[in-house]
Amino acid sequence: MRIPKLYVENAEKHEGRKVVIENNGKVIKFLDKDEEYSGNGKVLYQVIYDDFDKYVLMGEVTKDMLIEYEVGGVKQLTYIKKGTRLLEIPAEGYKVYPIVDFGCRILEGHRLAALQSRKGDIRFVNTPVNGIVVFLKEVPAKRENYVFYILPEKEIKFEEEL
Amino acid sequence: MRIPKLYVENAEKHEGRKVVIENNGKVIKFLDKDEEYSGNGKVLYQVIYDDFDKYVLMGEVTKDMLIEYEVGGVKQLTYIKKGTRLLEIPAEGYKVYPIVDFGCRILEGHRLAALQSRKGDIRFVNTPVNGIVVFLKEVPAKRENYVFYILPEKEIKFEEEL
Repeated sequence: MRIPKLYVENAEKHEGRKVVIENNGKVIKFLDKDEEYSGNGKVLYQVIYDDFDKYVLMGEVTKDMLIEYEVGGVKQLTYIKKGTRLLEIPAEGYKVYPIVDFGCRILEGHRLAALQSRKGDIRFVNTPVNGIVVFLKEVPAKRENYVFYILPEKEIKFEEEL
Repeated sequence: MRIPKLYVENAEKHEGRKVVIENNGKVIKFLDKDEEYSGNGKVLYQVIYDDFDKYVLMGEVTKDMLIEYEVGGVKQLTYIKKGTRLLEIPAEGYKVYPIVDFGCRILEGHRLAALQSRKGDIRFVNTPVNGIVVFLKEVPAKRENYVFYILPEKEIKFEEEL
């Protein structure tokens, strides 16, 4: 499996590559290594993909992000705007076997992971919503521990907004 | 579920919207309804999403295509280059229940659809490869009949090329 590339607005540390977003996503432009940019679009810098969750606070994306994923003759881009709310679903057990990964679109009730208990019993973690898996975090812990970051098709509303 | 938008190069019939691809996908630019374009990029025109399979011949994509899918604060773009090979997996039965749909990333062994026989037996159609579902076609027929168009992570080679 290939690892996607992650670009973030105003990243503190960043590697060489840059991408510019103009007009709220109407134009997406990858810059060459030394290419300068002088327009008034947003410049996103490449960061380490595994740092994705550093840009999510209390379920809310704190910076504009772009995920680039290339497979054969295909380029897939996912542009996530600041303020987008994600659902974080944990999967913890003696053994955890993730079934889906980045980029998987999932429909309500789909299995995200299989959990095995110490006794060998198997149960499943399902998704309660339709959405797209945007990141899978492995959390270092005594028991195996993953968190699925899901972008729901229906926007999440907090209680005080209802 | 929202329906994605499909853009195709040199489409014969097309609706109003256009998108320009420059430099082999380094720049993706959506044009306004009446916006003219004079650069040397490829212009893709919006067509009906359900016509996706008209641009696939013997498993090979015949024109550059772009799929646009928007959910909440997220825009997902999938740029498929002409010549890309897709795997077509049929699912036919007395009753067919598709489990995945456009945009689902699938891993080897994942279930694509459940098939129910006239007697009520259930079996599953699984994917033999890791990949992304780019289109799901419902084929009008006596029995229920779907075809999954899958972009495999590993490029498909024809026998004479090996």
